[in-house]
Amino acid sequence: MGEVTRIMVAVNESSLKGYPHPSISSKGAFEWTINKIVRDNVSSFNLLFLHVQVPDEDGFDDMDSIYASPDDFKRMKQRDRIRGAHLLEYFVNKCHEIGVGCQAWIKQGDPKEVICHEVKRVQPDFLVVGSRGLGPFQKVFVGTVSEFCVKHAECPVITIKRKADETPQDPVDD
Amino acid sequence: MGEVTRIMVAVNESSLKGYPHPSISSKGAFEWTINKIVRDNVSSFNLLFLHVQVPDEDGFDDMDSIYASPDDFKRMKQRDRIRGAHLLEYFVNKCHEIGVGCQAWIKQGDPKEVICHEVKRVQPDFLVVGSRGLGPFQKVFVGTVSEFCVKHAECPVITIKRKADETPQDPVDD
Repeated sequence: MGEVTRIMVAVNESSLKGYPHPSISSKGAFEWTINKIVRDNVSSFNLLFLHVQVPDEDGFDDMDSIYASPDDFKRMKQRDRIRGAHLLEYFVNKCHEIGVGCQAWIKQGDPKEVICHEVKRVQPDFLVVGSRGLGPFQKVFVGTVSEFCVKHAECPVITIKRKADETPQDPVDD
Repeated sequence: MGEVTRIMVAVNESSLKGYPHPSISSKGAFEWTINKIVRDNVSSFNLLFLHVQVPDEDGFDDMDSIYASPDDFKRMKQRDRIRGAHLLEYFVNKCHEIGVGCQAWIKQGDPKEVICHEVKRVQPDFLVVGSRGLGPFQKVFVGTVSEFCVKHAECPVITIKRKADETPQDPVDD
């Protein structure tokens, strides 16, 4: 068998459990990839974790902040980087325990656009994305990253829906 | 590691190469599954091949046939079964050579509906479907099984698009 199979896994932060927990659906997508694809064959696969930070969303935490100098913005950016690194640390640690090779990196922008752009750049064998499994009514308001990637990413995409018993009270949360 | 990962692969006949060749896209979906997922780890996976025969489409071959007795219909059904069995034989033989466990079966009906119904019944870990990768204009006329399955199948679905260099002169062919 030739080169390892490179699986890109798009991950994001939880909207519920607070920093630095991964969202329920990204945790589900990761665990599915390990349990159903990688299994014991750790040397056959390499996981590529991409975390896309949304500049606007992160800005919400800064509602009460006062920016008085260029340094304040630098500190804010620094803090974003640390948040992202802590999220990725969760997945990289898990891979290390399991013994499967991985890489992880952070990008900023619109997640669906950035994921497709990174697929084009990195050319993984396939992409795994978690999904909240929202109904058509909920989707109108929140959009879904997974559906966009299935249509536009230049590699095969597998969407792992959140389990019904893990759905929070508000299904838009994750 | 617990039970093997059960991968359902939906396969159909070629519209070009004639009986009993698999379509370019089902061959591609199968080879992708072997090369990128199963790899050397043959004991970790089990492939479930489903071939759905479309009653109307098969009927075209019978344009010049005369049905004079119930036996004629029996013979026709018998012949359909043989066609389907020969298609599945291709995939089962390949799995046997590779050493990966498999099962294969035939159903009749509308492929997209039957595939989703069989997913519900058999509960594979995920479903692999080939796709011709048609543009929006071509899709209007032919519909796409893969898009329907992505939306409606009760398991994760991965769509493997036909390679550009394997696209026949008429992309609706396969």
